[in-house]
Order: sequence, then C-alpha cells, then structure tokens
Amino acid sequence: VAKQIIETVPNFSEGRREEVVRAIVEAVRATPGGARVLDVSSDVDHNRSVLTLAGDEKGVRASVLRLFEEVLQRIDLRNHQGEHPRLGAVDVVPFVPVAGASMADCVKLAREIGEEVAARFEVPVYLYEEAATAEHRRNLAEIRKGEFEGLPKKMKDPRWAPDFGPDRPHPSAGASVIGAREFLIAFNVNLDTPQVQIADKIARAIRHSSGGMRYCKAMGVALSGRQLAQVSINMVNFKKTPLHRVLEIIKSEAARYGVNVVGSEIVGLVPNEALLAAADFYLRLEEFSVSQVLENRLAEPGT
Amino acid sequence: VAKQIIETVPNFSEGRREEVVRAIVEAVRATPGGARVLDVSSDVDHNRSVLTLAGDEKGVRASVLRLFEEVLQRIDLRNHQGEHPRLGAVDVVPFVPVAGASMADCVKLAREIGEEVAARFEVPVYLYEEAATAEHRRNLAEIRKGEFEGLPKKMKDPRWAPDFGPDRPHPSAGASVIGAREFLIAFNVNLDTPQVQIADKIARAIRHSSGGMRYCKAMGVALSGRQLAQVSINMVNFKKTPLHRVLEIIKSEAARYGVNVVGSEIVGLVPNEALLAAADFYLRLEEFSVSQVLENRLAEPGT
Repeated sequence: VAKQIIETVPNFSEGRREEVVRAIVEAVRATPGGARVLDVSSDVDHNRSVLTLAGDEKGVRASVLRLFEEVLQRIDLRNHQGEHPRLGAVDVVPFVPVAGASMADCVKLAREIGEEVAARFEVPVYLYEEAATAEHRRNLAEIRKGEFEGLPKKMKDPRWAPDFGPDRPHPSAGASVIGAREFLIAFNVNLDTPQVQIADKIARAIRHSSGGMRYCKAMGVALSGRQLAQVSINMVNFKKTPLHRVLEIIKSEAARYGVNVVGSEIVGLVPNEALLAAADFYLRLEEFSVSQVLENRLAEPGT
Repeated sequence: VAKQIIETVPNFSEGRREEVVRAIVEAVRATPGGARVLDVSSDVDHNRSVLTLAGDEKGVRASVLRLFEEVLQRIDLRNHQGEHPRLGAVDVVPFVPVAGASMADCVKLAREIGEEVAARFEVPVYLYEEAATAEHRRNLAEIRKGEFEGLPKKMKDPRWAPDFGPDRPHPSAGASVIGAREFLIAFNVNLDTPQVQIADKIARAIRHSSGGMRYCKAMGVALSGRQLAQVSINMVNFKKTPLHRVLEIIKSEAARYGVNVVGSEIVGLVPNEALLAAADFYLRLEEFSVSQVLENRLAEPGT
C-alpha cells in the first residue's frame, strides 16, 4: 500500500543555545532530497532537542547524515550538562515504519546508516531495540547507563563493544545509539474525578510493567487546572496493543470506582492506521481492507 | 489540508457490448494528465456502466471531456434498451469533494464542464443536486422523468429548458445531467436474526424518508446465505449524518427486539475522513485535529 513513509526521531544534546539548535535544524531542513521536518522540540532543563522527520528511505538517510555532520561541528559533550541522560552529541536515532516499509526495512536502514556514520565520522555506534545485535543491548537505558562520561571505561567491557566504529568514544561526540522501533503514540485519558490515586490504579492495571497490556506504559497524573485525573499513556506498539483495547479496559476499571472517561487526547502525531483500527473495531466492520479507503486506493501503484 | 482529490462517478448507457465498454474505459484511462480510474462496473440488465475516477480538478476535467468524446462516437440511444432510466449516452456525471476541495469548488467545476460539454458536443446539459439552478431541478429522478424518448416533448416546457446547450436533444446522445453531491458511502449492518421484518423496522427508524436521520437512506434485506437480516444503508452525507450515529441508533433499536449487531460492512470505497470521525467519536478525543494524522501532516504544503 501507498508511498513509503519512514519516521525518524533523532535526539541531539543541545536545548539551551537557540542559535545552535536553529542552525542545525535549518541545515537538516535544507538537505537536498531530504525528509520533511515535521516537528522540533527543545527542552532547556534536559538541554536536549528532538526532531521529528518523515520521508522515504533515501530522504531520511540523507537528512540523518546531514544532522550528524552539523551536530559534530557544533556540539562538544565535554561542555554539556543537562537532566536527561545522554551518551552522544547525536544521542539516539530511531527509525519507525509508518507506510510502505516493514520493521525489517527499518532495521536494515538503521544498520546501514550506523555503519556509514561510524565510517564517515569516527563515532562508535550501538544498535538498539529491533536493530539490536544482542538481547542485553535492546534497551536504550542499559546502553546509556554511565552516560558520556562513563564511556571510556564501559567500552573496555567486551559486552559493550560498539556495533560499528572505533572501540573508544569520539572525543567531543561520544557514541550514538541507532535503531528501529514501532511508532509511539502519546494517548491520555481523562477521568471525571480529581483523585489521582484512581488514575494511578488504572495505570497499573493497563501497563505492561505491572501486569497489563504488553505494549503499554502508563502513569496517573493530576490535571489540576481541570480538577480531573488523567491516565497518561505511551502506546509503544499500536498494532499489537491497540488504542481501543486500552480505552475499553480503562472504562471498565474506572466504572469499578464509579468514575467515567470524560475524554481523551492524542499528543502530537498519530499514524492513520491506528485510527482506522479504532474505527474498524467500534463500527464492527467485517472484512474491512485499508485499500477501501479512497486515499489509499489513489496512492496504490497504477490501475 | 492535503492534495486535492475530487471524485467523479460518470454513468454511461452501455453495459452489454463489452468491447464498447472496454474501448471507452481504455480511452478514459489513457487521457493525458487525467484522473485515476478506480473502478468500472457494468450491469447487463441495466445496460449501463458506472466509472469511478478521482484526481485533482484538472485531471477529472480532462477525463470527463475525454469520456464524452468517446461515448458520443460509440453509443446511440436510439438503439438502447435497459431497465435503468436514462436521459443520455453520458447519462449523469456527479462531482464529489473528497480532500482539498469544497462543495463550492465542485459546483463551479460542474457548471464549467457542463458549459464546455454543451459547446463542444452540442449536448444539452442539466445541472443537478448542489449544482442545480432551481429547486425543482435538484432531484435526478425528476430531471430524468420521461427519459431519452420523452426529451423532445419535455424540453418544450420552459421549466425544463437546459442549463447549457441547444433547446432540443442531441439526436443520438440525448441530454446529460451534471452536478455536485457529497460522497455516498454504502454501509450495511448485519443483525443476529433471520427476520427481515426487524431489519425493515430499523431501516424505517433511521432513514430520512420515514422520520429518521436527514442524510440516510435504508432498507431491510434478508442475507439468506447467512441466516441474517441486514439493514442496507446509503449514507449520502457522512459529514452531517455520520456512520457512528446511525450505528448507535441501530444498536438501540435492535436491542428493543432482543437483537444484536453482529457486524457491518462498507461496500466499495470510503473517504478516510469518515473513518477518522468514527475513531474520534468512539475514542472520545478532545480537540483532535486531522492534521495530527502523520500522513496528513506530510501532505501539507512545506514547513
């Protein structure tokens, strides 16, 4: 189906010097044949910025390599402080299949770009999540443990030899973590109670870490402005743990406290397919195919 | 939002001579810069074919004019018989806004193409539905009353003077009806009862003609193969009478007979927006915008 869309969400270690962030983003935007920059978000406390780009394989490849080039000229981690853990100047680059590309395509792309980054910039590269080469290297938090400052020691451990590039950190840019994962949907559900404890209990019921749905992370949050409690959720694989199933569990858990769902929100972007799946479920469609969607039919190769 | 998509569903009066239908469709497909042909469906009893095309304004204009050219060379209504009422060789051509185009754009397009058809081919043209120039000419069935054979007499009535072109029918091609309307979704809902009377009662509850929703047509049908009854629905304006509202009324009316909805189906194509609206409703989203859909964001003009 459709034109190829791969999303990539590179995180780089600068969120304070606005002119530096701007210069980097402008360079990425101007990449010939590059991907579209859909969002830029910088955090001063974290001293970190997150780009959201999307395009076909060629486009994201060109843009990510351009990002490395620019970041390496402008960021020196030896002078960097921030609340968010980081290993490198370009800290982490996930590739996400959205349309016309499989997870296998994104794993391959992550490995090819990892190899090229290591060769061109002499930055050691770790592959993570779906692109990881060993089970203990799947989890980003484990790879990042010890941070930039701990890299020289960590890299002497053969379990932490990089997948590509030199076996010591780049002096100013540390190491980079490149990989492939599913699309992350930020989905929040609001309850008609100010009691955050109820949202917390529901969060525990739905999230993987405490016995809930496999691809769901959640916590309770007080929306003090609205006198409501919220279940704040990261859906880390909407294909396997869909939005509607999580919402229905929340409704049933909330009812046990006499509480109702008053609304929900999707923060940022959502793949069309995730919403079509919800429509399919609630409309009780039989044998629905996404190629019945007029826009998809139009995007299919020639009739 | 997004790239312009206009759908057009021309009906022409040939459904028996396969080689004629094929030649016409091939010519339309080969239109330089034309719209995409998404579907062709011919009916032998009706002796009629229906094309579904989609593209931007320029594309649908080119394809429709090419269709007239080809049909006028190949179909002579003086030798045509079929069960379906018809006024012309190219009988009816509706334009439907799908994305990046308004109903007003489609009305304008219908009028421009109507004028051009009349001028180039000397075929009288009636404008209908949203493009109609008088209330009594909105309804296709009223315009078509008397059919091709009755045209010479009907056209003498000043109430039935054409909107464009000569005030007598084209000798072999009659007259054409061109207009603009909303997208039609064929939506069927299956009930866990073999009793078609229950489906009939529910159809009467939801359809406009007997007191139901304004943009809903419906009837009860027996699905004898499955021992189920079906409410068969035409949603003629999904923006104003949405799928979810009709489904929820059906569920509640069915419950009154102890009957459940076992499933539903969409026959043919559906605009993405119609399914997003269902997801929005059932997920209880607050302040959701279609530009949060990644694919829509990508289609927006440059960032």
